[in-house]
Amino acid sequence: MSKLWSGRFAQSGAQLLDEFNASLPFDKKLYEEDIRGSIAHATMLAKQGILTQEEAEEIAKGLMQIKQEIEEGLFEFSIAHEDIHMAVESRLITLIGEAGKRLHTARSRNDQVALDFRLYVQKQTLVIVNVLESLIDVLMQIAKEHTNTLLPGMTHLQHAQPINFAFHLLAYVSMFKRDIERLESSHKRNNILPLGCAALAGTPHNIDREYVAKLLGFDGVSVNCLDTVSDRDFALEILFNISTIMMHVSRFAEELILWSSYEFKFITLSDEYSTGSSIMPQKKNPDVPELLRGKTGRVNGNLISLLTVLKGLPLAYNKDMQEDKEGVFDSVETVFISLNILKEAIRTMSINHERMRQACEVGHLSATDLADYLVQKCNIPFREAHFITGRAVAHAESLGIDLSKLSVEELQKVDARIGEDVLEVLSLVHSMNARTSQGGTATSSTCKQIELLEAWIQSRKEA
Amino acid sequence: MSKLWSGRFAQSGAQLLDEFNASLPFDKKLYEEDIRGSIAHATMLAKQGILTQEEAEEIAKGLMQIKQEIEEGLFEFSIAHEDIHMAVESRLITLIGEAGKRLHTARSRNDQVALDFRLYVQKQTLVIVNVLESLIDVLMQIAKEHTNTLLPGMTHLQHAQPINFAFHLLAYVSMFKRDIERLESSHKRNNILPLGCAALAGTPHNIDREYVAKLLGFDGVSVNCLDTVSDRDFALEILFNISTIMMHVSRFAEELILWSSYEFKFITLSDEYSTGSSIMPQKKNPDVPELLRGKTGRVNGNLISLLTVLKGLPLAYNKDMQEDKEGVFDSVETVFISLNILKEAIRTMSINHERMRQACEVGHLSATDLADYLVQKCNIPFREAHFITGRAVAHAESLGIDLSKLSVEELQKVDARIGEDVLEVLSLVHSMNARTSQGGTATSSTCKQIELLEAWIQSRKEA
Amino acid sequence: MSKLWSGRFAQSGAQLLDEFNASLPFDKKLYEEDIRGSIAHATMLAKQGILTQEEAEEIAKGLMQIKQEIEEGLFEFSIAHEDIHMAVESRLITLIGEAGKRLHTARSRNDQVALDFRLYVQKQTLVIVNVLESLIDVLMQIAKEHTNTLLPGMTHLQHAQPINFAFHLLAYVSMFKRDIERLESSHKRNNILPLGCAALAGTPHNIDREYVAKLLGFDGVSVNCLDTVSDRDFALEILFNISTIMMHVSRFAEELILWSSYEFKFITLSDEYSTGSSIMPQKKNPDVPELLRGKTGRVNGNLISLLTVLKGLPLAYNKDMQEDKEGVFDSVETVFISLNILKEAIRTMSINHERMRQACEVGHLSATDLADYLVQKCNIPFREAHFITGRAVAHAESLGIDLSKLSVEELQKVDARIGEDVLEVLSLVHSMNARTSQGGTATSSTCKQIELLEAWIQSRKEA
Amino acid sequence: MSKLWSGRFAQSGAQLLDEFNASLPFDKKLYEEDIRGSIAHATMLAKQGILTQEEAEEIAKGLMQIKQEIEEGLFEFSIAHEDIHMAVESRLITLIGEAGKRLHTARSRNDQVALDFRLYVQKQTLVIVNVLESLIDVLMQIAKEHTNTLLPGMTHLQHAQPINFAFHLLAYVSMFKRDIERLESSHKRNNILPLGCAALAGTPHNIDREYVAKLLGFDGVSVNCLDTVSDRDFALEILFNISTIMMHVSRFAEELILWSSYEFKFITLSDEYSTGSSIMPQKKNPDVPELLRGKTGRVNGNLISLLTVLKGLPLAYNKDMQEDKEGVFDSVETVFISLNILKEAIRTMSINHERMRQACEVGHLSATDLADYLVQKCNIPFREAHFITGRAVAHAESLGIDLSKLSVEELQKVDARIGEDVLEVLSLVHSMNARTSQGGTATSSTCKQIELLEAWIQSRKEA
Repeated sequence: MSKLWSGRFAQSGAQLLDEFNASLPFDKKLYEEDIRGSIAHATMLAKQGILTQEEAEEIAKGLMQIKQEIEEGLFEFSIAHEDIHMAVESRLITLIGEAGKRLHTARSRNDQVALDFRLYVQKQTLVIVNVLESLIDVLMQIAKEHTNTLLPGMTHLQHAQPINFAFHLLAYVSMFKRDIERLESSHKRNNILPLGCAALAGTPHNIDREYVAKLLGFDGVSVNCLDTVSDRDFALEILFNISTIMMHVSRFAEELILWSSYEFKFITLSDEYSTGSSIMPQKKNPDVPELLRGKTGRVNGNLISLLTVLKGLPLAYNKDMQEDKEGVFDSVETVFISLNILKEAIRTMSINHERMRQACEVGHLSATDLADYLVQKCNIPFREAHFITGRAVAHAESLGIDLSKLSVEELQKVDARIGEDVLEVLSLVHSMNARTSQGGTATSSTCKQIELLEAWIQSRKEA
Repeated sequence: MSKLWSGRFAQSGAQLLDEFNASLPFDKKLYEEDIRGSIAHATMLAKQGILTQEEAEEIAKGLMQIKQEIEEGLFEFSIAHEDIHMAVESRLITLIGEAGKRLHTARSRNDQVALDFRLYVQKQTLVIVNVLESLIDVLMQIAKEHTNTLLPGMTHLQHAQPINFAFHLLAYVSMFKRDIERLESSHKRNNILPLGCAALAGTPHNIDREYVAKLLGFDGVSVNCLDTVSDRDFALEILFNISTIMMHVSRFAEELILWSSYEFKFITLSDEYSTGSSIMPQKKNPDVPELLRGKTGRVNGNLISLLTVLKGLPLAYNKDMQEDKEGVFDSVETVFISLNILKEAIRTMSINHERMRQACEVGHLSATDLADYLVQKCNIPFREAHFITGRAVAHAESLGIDLSKLSVEELQKVDARIGEDVLEVLSLVHSMNARTSQGGTATSSTCKQIELLEAWIQSRKEA
Repeated sequence: MSKLWSGRFAQSGAQLLDEFNASLPFDKKLYEEDIRGSIAHATMLAKQGILTQEEAEEIAKGLMQIKQEIEEGLFEFSIAHEDIHMAVESRLITLIGEAGKRLHTARSRNDQVALDFRLYVQKQTLVIVNVLESLIDVLMQIAKEHTNTLLPGMTHLQHAQPINFAFHLLAYVSMFKRDIERLESSHKRNNILPLGCAALAGTPHNIDREYVAKLLGFDGVSVNCLDTVSDRDFALEILFNISTIMMHVSRFAEELILWSSYEFKFITLSDEYSTGSSIMPQKKNPDVPELLRGKTGRVNGNLISLLTVLKGLPLAYNKDMQEDKEGVFDSVETVFISLNILKEAIRTMSINHERMRQACEVGHLSATDLADYLVQKCNIPFREAHFITGRAVAHAESLGIDLSKLSVEELQKVDARIGEDVLEVLSLVHSMNARTSQGGTATSSTCKQIELLEAWIQSRKEA
Repeated sequence: MSKLWSGRFAQSGAQLLDEFNASLPFDKKLYEEDIRGSIAHATMLAKQGILTQEEAEEIAKGLMQIKQEIEEGLFEFSIAHEDIHMAVESRLITLIGEAGKRLHTARSRNDQVALDFRLYVQKQTLVIVNVLESLIDVLMQIAKEHTNTLLPGMTHLQHAQPINFAFHLLAYVSMFKRDIERLESSHKRNNILPLGCAALAGTPHNIDREYVAKLLGFDGVSVNCLDTVSDRDFALEILFNISTIMMHVSRFAEELILWSSYEFKFITLSDEYSTGSSIMPQKKNPDVPELLRGKTGRVNGNLISLLTVLKGLPLAYNKDMQEDKEGVFDSVETVFISLNILKEAIRTMSINHERMRQACEVGHLSATDLADYLVQKCNIPFREAHFITGRAVAHAESLGIDLSKLSVEELQKVDARIGEDVLEVLSLVHSMNARTSQGGTATSSTCKQIELLEAWIQSRKEA
């Protein structure tokens, strides 16, 4: 059967090996971090008298030229260079000669990998924070317009109690707020320079790591070199943070899909964020939220991949760790595009108030209000009130109407203690507005939540 | 073939259903949290005039009695109560009657689940911090005794450069320090009261959530109720933090296994932390570190499980979320016992200095020193020095000796610029002590790391 | 802060170690397999003259007594015995003395673990097949009653084309059929005796492995002993097969949840398979399918756990492999109860034909029929027909009616080539029954599928 | 902070959306499958009179031209075409006009996706089988040369019993044999045509699915269309099969890494399959096996990703399922290159017989032989023999020698029943050759295993 893959086999073993070993095809994404890191390293070496000032300047100039070559598409990436570090260094030597050969003094590739990857993760962490902020802005804007828009709050996908749409959106704002807090906490905790560990044990050269940290915007220097070249906790953290974000996104996406269905019709996605069918001309499919939901798989896979790679690795660097990058790149790009797309899909959707409100009239949504009324007005223990309400619901069902439509007389048949004032209690708007406790759905309470969240946003802008 | 499982089928469908639905068999572990939460809730209800002071006291007394019954093994758990919340409440009603029925005012089971589980996670987070601290103490003690104990530092499981054993242990201290920082960061971020959200939308009762938060030691109150009953981020965080800890443990375990092998013999595990073979009388197996390494699978599985459960769930509570607890309980218990066992295994192992030192004489460990010597003394660019050193290593290999054993004459055959002073450079102790850069392996540098870490430990004790 | 866990610390280190190392708390589940295996081993040893016939009989009798002791709850499990193998053997020696000590001749614990676990997996594989068969029976019965029950077939959760309910159920029958095929394939592939490998390399005793295989119902004997004691592929296979089954179950569960919502109301779960709310008296929650959906997390976690445990383990047995069992036990029990519960939930649900049919009148479900009509009757290329139909749908929308309600005149405004015969084409029943291709939804085609599947079921019963 | 990602934001929302939605960037890999499938479909349509013969021929010709254009790099892929199916069809219409528009009759994109992806998976399944066969060939060749090469068999990474190197390699042959069996079982089970289901419910056109199945080499036709367009079991199977293969590879890789260390030195990897260090000139790192071990993470991640994507999806097609392909492509390419590289690394490594043999003299490897001797020659129960041997080992340790080096006199001090004939028993070669049981390590037994496996290989070649 060998012909099946003979095409592939035309490749010589050596070619396969290059393809297998080399990280250049994916780590070239780190060129900017590599160059920044090398310039800082050379600057420090010069300050310490390990390089001359002239050498450091030549190096910096050479590296800036390489950066430009890469950005202009003029740089020739050859798999023979294995990785971005060798690709850049080798070009540097070609460009500036002797001084280029001195750049690698007092560092190692393990060092560079650790630095470049951390610079990338730190930067992307803040990029994701930015995108989340921008998504929150859109959610807050819509929320402010819908503090009176009734829809059925659900548990178990069953109508439970009437809430307002702003309140529902603020649930997602709260999730994305936590996501921001997690990202910023990771950023702070990991803002530590790894460079200066050489292969694993430090270097005899008289380097100044604090200075490099300052040049590169780190808050401190790693404590132990053996740990530093082996550490990928920062990569795990961004993967986990992204998995949590995408889990939140998947829940929102699920609701957008449900709400777009003929059965719900709570929202209509804009044409731009839906697609048609190749065979059914009437279809308008919520492809965007479906794909958002599906992306959860990918980011969870990336997280478990890296945890698996790191399991049981002895110290210090092992080549297995080369497998750390592609998953992180993929998760970062996935969350970036997903949050942007989600923001646009939400910004452009129409909200069908009337359908939302009608849905509240189904499912006896004011049942809890009746129970609470019995507790508060008639001083009946909650467990008993719950039981009486159950009977009232059954009575309404037997009449084929919603509990909120029962007359006082009918209600009194269930329990004589019920008074005229029950009617107001059972109205949907009243029901929603009754839940005034802190964090509750009452419009007043929802508005307080908006204030709190806006204050938080404002305080961040000022910081 | 139905006979294969007929035994099981004797169970009626209803029994199976109880078994399937009920969380009591595992959530009874939360009895203490449930009772604490209920007492705080009742206290607040009384303060707000929703219960009388007498009712609140009766409730508290009843609940304390139930706690005692459970702890003394006198409490009858019946699966018919479904979960710990109903089991406790139903017993309370039996014990104190009417007042017991009023306890559930202004809260829901979703509320209670969210509270009890968060109280558990918050408490266990600090327990794990404690165990990590205790493990770090043991590592620091051993480290302090071994700042001069040579062993081969490795990358790719190949001898790389001589380091000292303290330096190696401090790598793990650094990892566990980060683990503590992550746990404490999670604890702080999640120290927010969920209770008071009722089913999903808050309550019309005039409750005081800030007061409950204070009673239960929370720093604040959750912002949005819909989010609060749906949120399991705190559970994901502890699962992730544990996965990261166990990944570190698995790396340490791998090294203990390697070091215990006949080939390495760097350490000898105490008899207590090794086991024999049922068939091979001479065997002494490192079962403990092997099992530690294997536990990684379990905690990673628990993490991916909960991420999978939460994927795509619409708001608010869905019964799927009942699957959140067992994995967390399992990971918490796994990390607790694993860290304790690891601590003891390390505390009781013997360290075979002589074998470690001998191992340094294999693998030309001072090759980097020769290269650095060429750079520093002869002003040769690093890339060239690297090349010359490669030739020196080849020369040593051809003579069948280690690079550190080459005479000056032999070295000068490789490159005439090499001087007499090279000999000291090539000695193993010198090589180790040359790496004086910040975080490096030189004894002086290692001692500074110990100081830094002890200062951190001290500052925590004072805090 | 040590008081937080002082309770736990009262346990001495030695107790913790026992708890950590011992597998008895979970592997006692294998007692029956252990005893079966030992009896077969002893029988073979006697046949080969390694034991006397009397010794083998004493052993068998002793083991049968132990089995009875365990099943009657009289057996004292002590953690000091570490595992079920030692617990049984040690009791055997107490019971019968000398002969008991000879039982372990020519085998090892690694051997026994491999055998007992495989016996368990093989048996449970068939148990799961049985439960799937029983679930399929229920689905087939309901399907046979609903080959004419219209409901909207969906893609992207959007109405697509009218189908019948039997056709929908047969999709799940097809999935569970594949699940059975996978399980049976695994069973066959893995029906190979591991015993007789001793620690890793075989034994000098003149054993007869083929004979033991026959006694225990295996089809063959493993080829290489080193592989055999290291192999857990059979455990991975059952975990994967269960993950796939539960993925199918989660899709069915999702549909049951949707169909139970107020918005769909396609089905009503029986009271037994729904539950109420502690706070909202009107609620009837689809807890059972929600929990079924949530169980996916658990079984996927178990799969990834074992894959992680086995990663990078050198040959042969390592203690990490003790982590292989709990996940398998958990997945087996989860799928067993889940399939049984699903079967009952489906068997007892009511099907709301009228709601299903009404739903078909929304969403222009016969749009594809119009396109197909244009292709077949008017010889218009499909891509053009698709475009014309899109215009007809838009026209219907502008009139506020479903495409199926448009008059011929209105349709001819869109395209003059449309004839009178289009009306029948656009009827929902006609639309469903038009799809007569193999595997299609037409009642005739659905009935053929039922025939095919019943023939498959029948052929299995006869086998 | 928005400047951090302003570069990315230059992209308009619409561009982001195209990038997000389109599968073309990765599914273009399926061009060949897409074209094959379309030609078969057109051929069938013509046979059934739905197209004219001329139309079918035009289509086939057009498609073959497109194939050539793609393979020659002349085809312009535009993201506006979303996926490979639309890209090909749209080009076809440009090339041949009217007939091209008729190709999509009686099928849908869901149909095409399901077909193309299955064709790919089926083909790659056999490709992986081929590569495994080729790896097995290399292992068998080396094994045949090493049936007398002693090395220490290990459990728990501790010396256990002497085995031969062929026996060790055959353990891996046995694993890869099971992998082949799993792949072929999947291939057979899934060799079922999906095409002909249209969107989800079949088609009114008079198509002949059996004929298409025959044209495309399938063994049968799927039973139920709704299931067929929703089914990705075949993709899960290949992902699982690859995870299992790579788990085996990771175990082999771990051993190669250990064996390459200074401590073991059992093998020397060829220069081609090792790499140097940028800083330590003496290093020769086993990068290839390390990377092989690390690839486990990636393939396990891909498996869990797809399981997560499919969780809880309602029938039939949902856009989430677009996430099914990249992970499969990645796992297929990973396993392909990994197995090839592993094969070459093994083929070119040197085996250090002498080091392997020397290692057998450490660790009292013949202890089990002594125990077996006591059982067989002195009729002592195994448990007692095990105990006596333990004392003999302790005695040897106290003398600082290996058990195999103890004199008869010394042994008799431990137990007087030991005879002169014990010496032969304790020799390493004798110990290895004593394990003659089926599957055991004795050279004779190993040779029988080679015969068995060669017969299996031969039978496959003849099939």
